[in-house]
Amino acid sequence: MAEQFDIAVIPGDGIGPEVIAESRKVLDAVLSGVEAQVSYTEYSLGAAHWLETGETLSEETLEKLKQHSAILFGAVGADPLDARIPSGVIERELLLGLRFNLDHSVNLRPSQTFPGVSTPLDGEGDFDFVVVREGTEGPYAGNGGQLRRGTPQEIATEVSVNTAHGVRRVVRDAFLRAQERSKKLTLVHKNNVLTYAGDLWTRTTREVAEEFPEVTWDYMHVDAATIHMVTDPQRFDVIVTDNLFGDILTDLAAAITGGIGLASSGSINAEGVYPSMFEPVHGSAPDIAGQQIADPTAAVLSSALMLDNLGLTEAARAVEQAVHAQLTEWAQAGTTGLSTAQRGDAFVAKIKETL
Amino acid sequence: MAEQFDIAVIPGDGIGPEVIAESRKVLDAVLSGVEAQVSYTEYSLGAAHWLETGETLSEETLEKLKQHSAILFGAVGADPLDARIPSGVIERELLLGLRFNLDHSVNLRPSQTFPGVSTPLDGEGDFDFVVVREGTEGPYAGNGGQLRRGTPQEIATEVSVNTAHGVRRVVRDAFLRAQERSKKLTLVHKNNVLTYAGDLWTRTTREVAEEFPEVTWDYMHVDAATIHMVTDPQRFDVIVTDNLFGDILTDLAAAITGGIGLASSGSINAEGVYPSMFEPVHGSAPDIAGQQIADPTAAVLSSALMLDNLGLTEAARAVEQAVHAQLTEWAQAGTTGLSTAQRGDAFVAKIKETL
Ligand SMILES: CC(C)[C@H](C(=O)O)[C@@H](O)C(=O)O
Ligand SMILES: CC(C)[C@H](C(=O)O)[C@@H](O)C(=O)O
Repeated sequence: MAEQFDIAVIPGDGIGPEVIAESRKVLDAVLSGVEAQVSYTEYSLGAAHWLETGETLSEETLEKLKQHSAILFGAVGADPLDARIPSGVIERELLLGLRFNLDHSVNLRPSQTFPGVSTPLDGEGDFDFVVVREGTEGPYAGNGGQLRRGTPQEIATEVSVNTAHGVRRVVRDAFLRAQERSKKLTLVHKNNVLTYAGDLWTRTTREVAEEFPEVTWDYMHVDAATIHMVTDPQRFDVIVTDNLFGDILTDLAAAITGGIGLASSGSINAEGVYPSMFEPVHGSAPDIAGQQIADPTAAVLSSALMLDNLGLTEAARAVEQAVHAQLTEWAQAGTTGLSTAQRGDAFVAKIKETL
Repeated sequence: MAEQFDIAVIPGDGIGPEVIAESRKVLDAVLSGVEAQVSYTEYSLGAAHWLETGETLSEETLEKLKQHSAILFGAVGADPLDARIPSGVIERELLLGLRFNLDHSVNLRPSQTFPGVSTPLDGEGDFDFVVVREGTEGPYAGNGGQLRRGTPQEIATEVSVNTAHGVRRVVRDAFLRAQERSKKLTLVHKNNVLTYAGDLWTRTTREVAEEFPEVTWDYMHVDAATIHMVTDPQRFDVIVTDNLFGDILTDLAAAITGGIGLASSGSINAEGVYPSMFEPVHGSAPDIAGQQIADPTAAVLSSALMLDNLGLTEAARAVEQAVHAQLTEWAQAGTTGLSTAQRGDAFVAKIKETL
């Protein structure tokens, strides 16, 4: 009997629905020839949903989402000009809520140049690395507080919480990936200043490294990592780092790869207990929503990461190859100004050529 | 009577002494025509000194340093291959020790392209912004700890400490600078995730902004700031941010400006109670030490920031103009491979032309 997958789809706000529509087209195309039954259930969540219902992510919705094989996520976040929506609430309660409640220990963010696609860097060759960002702790834990708010004596704290459990599993995941790639791993932290967490990260990496004698690893401070990323990105293969450093470095990585419109990500539940989630790195971009000008590439590449996660690796490769081929063609032909749907359709056509 | 300044000089380790030697030459040249008596006292501090004496920064040395008009700092930090020196100790106890004990609330890091000097960015025009980094708190406070170290139950925390006092004074300093420049300020933080500290920073900026009606300001998340820095650096004028974000962004800023060899900084005691300190952003680079290949430009530009701080603004401008003119000449002539001393001598010659 064919495998069955029931995907939860959260299009979200802004350009989310537009780019997810293209992911769905591409999935339909690539899965038409695959012996797997894939069904989709849409969930209406995000800023608009919150305004209507007051729900960011209810227990009930969370329980339903847990039953799915995977989650395909567009983008959420209110228009910052919309005064009805307190800043960051949707991002925290829904997006981070899902990452934390579904124990997405590994936030996977590949960065790869596409032949011909221009980048802001001058004369750098192609590169291909992946950032393995911790997804469930660190400065994102929400620990901290305020004392004497609004007075000259106010103190506000943020506590980065790092556990052996959380660090070890993400470091091990990164080593496994390095083993499959070019056997090179870089730990990025700031262990000369953040000595408590830095010691845990560095020590854990040293320990896990013993299980992977073929993989060589080095250490780099996060500030230095930004320099290498713009001057020498080829030096990286697998980067493992904490939640906040990973957030910062992957936006930089997206920028030097050709833009946030191309950057895909997967929030992985490494234990396979809960569904993993796949989303473009970009946000909801309310300023360009509904105009069919958003680039669906990041969402489409994120669905390839999802296929990989579901074990449909051939389909995953087919999507990636179609995207690469199509981007290269457009770059060579100097094609610009395509609509969101035109780009999605072109990816579909490319996939059909190869089936 | 001529003003008197007694400068403490801490050449430090690695390339520190080499680049400081050039700063000293430049200071001598530019101050020869100035009616001020400047004397220098050298302090032997750093990794080598620690190995000899066990001192990183004693109470006694600190008290002596407090008596000076300013501190000119090279670079400190051990050779990472030297197993006798625990990683980060010198940086923390000496460098951060000085910043914290001398209450260097404002860590000033200008970023400016030099006409003709190539950068890793493709086709971006010139830009000129300054990062005003908080220098005495945030994640650098050294708060945090470990529990059950070395066990599977280990927890390591880092506490970012933010006070109304610390945030307000650095934000005000940034607004003052913005007022003198193009009247545009950007607050960089991650207030959608780090809500306690983010709220303090954002609220304080909003409040201080009322004192500066001519300055317009906006807010940007730190991850997005890395993107704008490589795709659109012209959008920045004055950036104000916390200690850790400032650390990361200023290395990136140095990279896109043409390299860490050009990036100067000042750690300013805004109240004028203790001496401020001026140092290149680069580190001690033990791998190239003693070879006369280090670029002294960052150290020389840091001494210009020092002259500014001492009120010797004409001398400061003279140094900056000489450096700019010389870098442009070299870029136009394609000159490379000059030694550390040759570069310093050229700056001196340029200064002498204009005196
Ligand atoms: C929206 C925000 C909470 C999120 C994060 O900080 O993780 C985003 O920047 C990302 O990188 O996915
Ligand atoms: C050496 C280190 C402690 C220091 C810092 O993190 O502040 C350095 O990176 C800097 O930017 O001056």
